[in-house]
Amino acid sequence: MEEDRQETPVESGAPDAQRYLDNWRRAEADFENYKKRIEQERAETAKFASTSLILNILPVLDDLDRAFKTVPEKLAHLTWTDGLRLIHRKLQATLEAQGVTEIMALGEKFDTSIHEAVGETTGEDGKVIEEAQRGYRLHGRVIRPAFVIVGNGKQQEKN
Amino acid sequence: MEEDRQETPVESGAPDAQRYLDNWRRAEADFENYKKRIEQERAETAKFASTSLILNILPVLDDLDRAFKTVPEKLAHLTWTDGLRLIHRKLQATLEAQGVTEIMALGEKFDTSIHEAVGETTGEDGKVIEEAQRGYRLHGRVIRPAFVIVGNGKQQEKN
Repeated sequence: MEEDRQETPVESGAPDAQRYLDNWRRAEADFENYKKRIEQERAETAKFASTSLILNILPVLDDLDRAFKTVPEKLAHLTWTDGLRLIHRKLQATLEAQGVTEIMALGEKFDTSIHEAVGETTGEDGKVIEEAQRGYRLHGRVIRPAFVIVGNGKQQEKN
Repeated sequence: MEEDRQETPVESGAPDAQRYLDNWRRAEADFENYKKRIEQERAETAKFASTSLILNILPVLDDLDRAFKTVPEKLAHLTWTDGLRLIHRKLQATLEAQGVTEIMALGEKFDTSIHEAVGETTGEDGKVIEEAQRGYRLHGRVIRPAFVIVGNGKQQEKN
């Protein structure tokens, strides 16, 4: 690289000196700014580096959530089933330890910043009546909104 | 930052010019080298960013592996159990898609770069006779060695 620069500027005196000094200062300042930006980026990157893996693991957690909502009665009290229940909790705990938290949905006021409406039903207007899929945050940032069914303000017909 | 530099070097002529030019070139070269290093680091970081999360998820996979080695006979053919088996495969597939691969162990020659001996037993000398815990690589790099029990060259006593 250095070989390309063949000009010998020593003789050219003061105007060059000013220009070189300016360039030097600019180069140093650019370098400093770059370093600062990289440091910020690096901290942010480390915090959210696993987002894509987490988003891919969440469906596994969804499936386990669903499976343990519908354990057949005759299996519910077996040691084997308890073992799987512990595995389910272990996966939850592992994700929590990484900064993953659940988004509150059921019974909350519908909020487009954390909820995504996938349907409506009878019930209090603008309130989350049902949670179709749990939402999650990573370090406070929404990585998957909760899929919810929202009340339409109509009363359920009786009889 | 710029305010600190109060020297006005314009009058000082050629020797300064040479020095400023050298400094400018050095600053530019340092900046270029730094950028190159950062780019390399960034590629490497992205590839292995999820290592710690993966290492934390592997015990969940171990538990599922173990659970499906010992399904009680009366549960083995239930839809609910099949559902969980699918969840198990989904977790495996998710990790594979991230670049996670299993380390071969059973029946292989014991290799300290991928295996960790946790015991010995009768069997062919220096051969992996039993796998106590599966090992894994991420993008080819060993992130968890396989825990294995190695043959000691003695024959199992017959009686």
